[in-house]
Amino acid sequence: MNSFGEIFRLTTFGESHGPALGGIIDGMPAGLEVDIKAVQQELDRRRPGQSAIVTGRQENDRVTFLSGIFEGKTTGTPIGFTIANTDQHSKDYEEMRHIWRPSHADMTYTMKYGMRDHRGGGRASARETAARVVGGALARQVLSRHGITVAAYTSSVGPVTTPLPYSSMSLASAYDNDARCPDKDVAEEMIRLIKEVKKKGDTIGGTVTCVVSGVPAGLGEPLFDKLQSRLAAAMLSIPAAKGFDYGMGFDGCGSLGSEMADTFIPDGNGGITTATNHSGGIQGGISNGSDIYFRVAFKPVATLLRRVDTTDDTGRPTQLQARGRHDPCVLPRAVPIVEAMTAMVILDAFLKNRTTRL
Amino acid sequence: MNSFGEIFRLTTFGESHGPALGGIIDGMPAGLEVDIKAVQQELDRRRPGQSAIVTGRQENDRVTFLSGIFEGKTTGTPIGFTIANTDQHSKDYEEMRHIWRPSHADMTYTMKYGMRDHRGGGRASARETAARVVGGALARQVLSRHGITVAAYTSSVGPVTTPLPYSSMSLASAYDNDARCPDKDVAEEMIRLIKEVKKKGDTIGGTVTCVVSGVPAGLGEPLFDKLQSRLAAAMLSIPAAKGFDYGMGFDGCGSLGSEMADTFIPDGNGGITTATNHSGGIQGGISNGSDIYFRVAFKPVATLLRRVDTTDDTGRPTQLQARGRHDPCVLPRAVPIVEAMTAMVILDAFLKNRTTRL
Amino acid sequence: MNSFGEIFRLTTFGESHGPALGGIIDGMPAGLEVDIKAVQQELDRRRPGQSAIVTGRQENDRVTFLSGIFEGKTTGTPIGFTIANTDQHSKDYEEMRHIWRPSHADMTYTMKYGMRDHRGGGRASARETAARVVGGALARQVLSRHGITVAAYTSSVGPVTTPLPYSSMSLASAYDNDARCPDKDVAEEMIRLIKEVKKKGDTIGGTVTCVVSGVPAGLGEPLFDKLQSRLAAAMLSIPAAKGFDYGMGFDGCGSLGSEMADTFIPDGNGGITTATNHSGGIQGGISNGSDIYFRVAFKPVATLLRRVDTTDDTGRPTQLQARGRHDPCVLPRAVPIVEAMTAMVILDAFLKNRTTRL
Amino acid sequence: MNSFGEIFRLTTFGESHGPALGGIIDGMPAGLEVDIKAVQQELDRRRPGQSAIVTGRQENDRVTFLSGIFEGKTTGTPIGFTIANTDQHSKDYEEMRHIWRPSHADMTYTMKYGMRDHRGGGRASARETAARVVGGALARQVLSRHGITVAAYTSSVGPVTTPLPYSSMSLASAYDNDARCPDKDVAEEMIRLIKEVKKKGDTIGGTVTCVVSGVPAGLGEPLFDKLQSRLAAAMLSIPAAKGFDYGMGFDGCGSLGSEMADTFIPDGNGGITTATNHSGGIQGGISNGSDIYFRVAFKPVATLLRRVDTTDDTGRPTQLQARGRHDPCVLPRAVPIVEAMTAMVILDAFLKNRTTRL
Repeated sequence: MNSFGEIFRLTTFGESHGPALGGIIDGMPAGLEVDIKAVQQELDRRRPGQSAIVTGRQENDRVTFLSGIFEGKTTGTPIGFTIANTDQHSKDYEEMRHIWRPSHADMTYTMKYGMRDHRGGGRASARETAARVVGGALARQVLSRHGITVAAYTSSVGPVTTPLPYSSMSLASAYDNDARCPDKDVAEEMIRLIKEVKKKGDTIGGTVTCVVSGVPAGLGEPLFDKLQSRLAAAMLSIPAAKGFDYGMGFDGCGSLGSEMADTFIPDGNGGITTATNHSGGIQGGISNGSDIYFRVAFKPVATLLRRVDTTDDTGRPTQLQARGRHDPCVLPRAVPIVEAMTAMVILDAFLKNRTTRL
Repeated sequence: MNSFGEIFRLTTFGESHGPALGGIIDGMPAGLEVDIKAVQQELDRRRPGQSAIVTGRQENDRVTFLSGIFEGKTTGTPIGFTIANTDQHSKDYEEMRHIWRPSHADMTYTMKYGMRDHRGGGRASARETAARVVGGALARQVLSRHGITVAAYTSSVGPVTTPLPYSSMSLASAYDNDARCPDKDVAEEMIRLIKEVKKKGDTIGGTVTCVVSGVPAGLGEPLFDKLQSRLAAAMLSIPAAKGFDYGMGFDGCGSLGSEMADTFIPDGNGGITTATNHSGGIQGGISNGSDIYFRVAFKPVATLLRRVDTTDDTGRPTQLQARGRHDPCVLPRAVPIVEAMTAMVILDAFLKNRTTRL
Repeated sequence: MNSFGEIFRLTTFGESHGPALGGIIDGMPAGLEVDIKAVQQELDRRRPGQSAIVTGRQENDRVTFLSGIFEGKTTGTPIGFTIANTDQHSKDYEEMRHIWRPSHADMTYTMKYGMRDHRGGGRASARETAARVVGGALARQVLSRHGITVAAYTSSVGPVTTPLPYSSMSLASAYDNDARCPDKDVAEEMIRLIKEVKKKGDTIGGTVTCVVSGVPAGLGEPLFDKLQSRLAAAMLSIPAAKGFDYGMGFDGCGSLGSEMADTFIPDGNGGITTATNHSGGIQGGISNGSDIYFRVAFKPVATLLRRVDTTDDTGRPTQLQARGRHDPCVLPRAVPIVEAMTAMVILDAFLKNRTTRL
Repeated sequence: MNSFGEIFRLTTFGESHGPALGGIIDGMPAGLEVDIKAVQQELDRRRPGQSAIVTGRQENDRVTFLSGIFEGKTTGTPIGFTIANTDQHSKDYEEMRHIWRPSHADMTYTMKYGMRDHRGGGRASARETAARVVGGALARQVLSRHGITVAAYTSSVGPVTTPLPYSSMSLASAYDNDARCPDKDVAEEMIRLIKEVKKKGDTIGGTVTCVVSGVPAGLGEPLFDKLQSRLAAAMLSIPAAKGFDYGMGFDGCGSLGSEMADTFIPDGNGGITTATNHSGGIQGGISNGSDIYFRVAFKPVATLLRRVDTTDDTGRPTQLQARGRHDPCVLPRAVPIVEAMTAMVILDAFLKNRTTRL
């Protein structure tokens, strides 16, 4: 379904080539001042056409709020919003009416629904993530009032990976370069690689790392709504995402328990802390107060910018020349989307946790 | 919360040291004969005490069905069941009333709820997964009538990894050895490693791979209930799980799009198929009819069987000697749990998809 | 929350005085031709300004669909829509910023949310029901393809009640008169009464009766989603609704069981029918194939068109002169809203029931 | 489905003739002392066999808690419980395997599920309400700590109705007589009438009135989870319930707005109150701090204790002689069930409201 979250809940609609996309944010706490410019800034970060290494489409992505905000403040009623689709080249897609692009959702939508809007990927277009960014931007504004920050960055593109742990970088600087990697030197390598790949009409994958700081202990609802379950579901719902791990993650599988235990130690102020954070800030599905960090794997996008062999929907061999404008690498634009989904998960858990003890 | 699934929904209860655990299965289709022996067999596969490489606890794990099955068939009404807790050594845990085990849920439960049942991990004990296995076993029986099979196996333990792709192994043979890896030679290595680790009082992690075959195209509900989102949430809700990826997963991040596209080709019978299945059987969140396959990362379990340094819950340094009986490696017992959760996800999606077209 | 339904689900947003209201319809079956004119016709029936006995506000109520419909057919993806607010007289409400209208939601919204949009009732305005009518209109189009019809009418206004059972009237003719009562003579009396009440600046209540025909046996999900539970929740969510009963309802409370049993009799075609339908087409929460019928009680609307005594929000006595344009009797305009909510409940149950047996 | 509530959620299972029924309470706030005797007392009030005017079945109805309570306090984890079925006369029902009792759920369950447990009504038996009473009893214990009380009583049996408003009776005395009407003289008349009806092998209906006091302003979630919507759904889910109204309800339909407005007046302490409470404590779906009161209509139970004409499930005429033990009037035993459902609705709204403002 098209709703996300239990108490803070975003419901979205919209195809890439209809008049508009948008959504409804339900469960937004009442009485908060909304910084609409900040929302727009996050949309701008997701928007294509910003640099040499992303698609050249010029989507304006202006959000219009229709309800739920009165005299600058949230009223507690649902916040409806739209983002007009303005830079559509629907004709680019006409030949795809009967061709399914490999590794795209063209075939599966057709099989499931018996038909599809073939223009620009329809509902499966990554354009729908604009609505997520709006929801996430509002969630972040609530979180930041409670000292919780969410920061993501590109941690690898193809084989190019930053060797630095997140804690030794200034995550806020991720948006300072086109790769969105706060490790500047590595960012330059990433950019070089993406340009090279683009020149060949090819695409490349990578990983985003996300860090949530300032989370109070207690968020997450065992058994089935563990914080990592919600985060994983959120991340895997992003187009092109193929994997999720948190804390020690896949890399910890090869380790021993004695190497991975986060030993409790006195914190020097009469409290307790842990010597390490291999757990990634979550134990038993509940936040423990340490930083939450996780990775999301993104595949190389499936649309190549060169002629590829395929069949039409009757099985007849044909060739496909994508004429839309596409990203050679989804990573830089995935960063704000990962942040948005994360912010919504954390706020939802934060609100839910208010019902645990009276 | 303690419910899982939308239409086929399992709700569970129970701590490791209460009188019983159990659950309620809602949305089970009506009129199906239930093979109760097969349910018990799956429970036996999860049960501790079965081999030299798992915990020596002797849990009987007999399921008692209390409703929803009449004259051998499901009635469409909820299926309540209990599993008595019989082999409790509650006193093993008395000293842990004021000690939080490192990398366990002891601290986070206490922070969230203001208290916890400190015996045997309480609700956070992996013992709760017995109820999941019951739900999964019933789901499998429905799926198998529709030609859908779910098979998981241990694909790595520490650095020991089977090099074989799933398609070249007989997955049904996974349960033939204690490691639950259908690659016999590698299985022996895994067993050797686990025994060695156990001797040192240490623990080790690994990965489970799971394959779902016979899935019709069309399962999964974009945007936010994509099949991979549901699978990821299910897997990350399993105790000790740290990561999930499907299809090319994390390994595909370093690849080019041209290497990873699943090109459409004629299938020789007038239909269409794909030359490869890097997508892992899901595109745009919807199954495409190919095998679905994914991996789950499990950490080395946190309870070491040797004395470790820690603090009590007031921050005073102390030492902890786990006296319960624990697994040196969670992998073999994780296999039936992964299968159970997968079966429930797929059945839920299968039922939901019946509402897509009239 | 602002979502209604489980599988066919409407989520709405919008205040009476914002730029627009609207909604998202999720779970609409794919591949159905949409009759957009028919949707508009139902909106027009709800719209104010249509006759002498309803408010003189001229709301245009044009629905704009933004997604989910492609080349005239539903795609199975969410249908977003907006209805612009065009005839706002926001200044009519300025003085109400600090006055709570008696028996309105002004006080309770302020208490709950700490603030409110005071213009025209804000989110609590009956204007929000326009979005419900859009959802209901689409649901009806699906139902009608399956032979299910929904027809409501004004069955009483104040003490003026039609003595005819629904089965002896042509329900389709309800919209032929301003009272929306298919009993023409009684309709005239109702109109007379409403005009009289209006002249005095007063308001009056009444009941709507609704009949659903052609419903197959089997809809409704015991225990807690019984068909009557869903209908009751739907009806009580309509502004000004104060009660719901179905079948024999409140009137049957005084009767004996022997008078009220719906005895089974042969139907003459080798099947079974019942001699009566006191049950109202539902038994044990599940439809039995007979007509479903129920009543909804509506209070006299709270806004009088004359000066009334009240206090401001600090408790200081003042007088209130409503200057907006209001209905003297909500009944005629409630008829299409009752139909819309009913259609959505029935379609949701219809879709859910497809998962009961495989 | 078999779950009720969003944050405080009861899921139940069980037929009248299986080994046990029971449920799982999820979302119970942590750290509260549980008075288990008080739970049992409420079960005893629902239990049959308590007086001359209810069924003579002797159900023991002992609740066994299996989890979620540790050292006398709630842990925040799910509370599983069972109630054994001990006084089953399954053979009483054998002849009903192929006979559908008129106005019962026998036919509809068979139509929906393709089969049914024909013994004692199966899942449709009112016996399932025992699980609701357990959930309600725990909810009440939470509410009472916050000064909220729930009290119901039999307000009419057939034509015998108490003329007293609830505010002029001591509601706590309702359980002092077998009719459960705090108006003693009327209670005696009710008892006389029920005995008379019973002697004839007939049954009779009536109404329960319920009052919730001490509710803070702000509970209820517009638009679709208005407090009255939730209450109506809860009440209509009770077996034999046919209607619900609140505040002025159906009786207010004949009134003028000027008679029904709850005018604001100074409360003498610098605050505001209303001169009347025709609204029934809810405005715009949100509690306003006044008493919430509503009525529930119950039909005369369908099982007559005399021979009735019917058909078997192939349409062949036959006669049915109910041999189970049944209530001539459901009203007295409905009182604790109405209270239980009400308590769960109010607690759920109370918990949800904690997420409205930060």
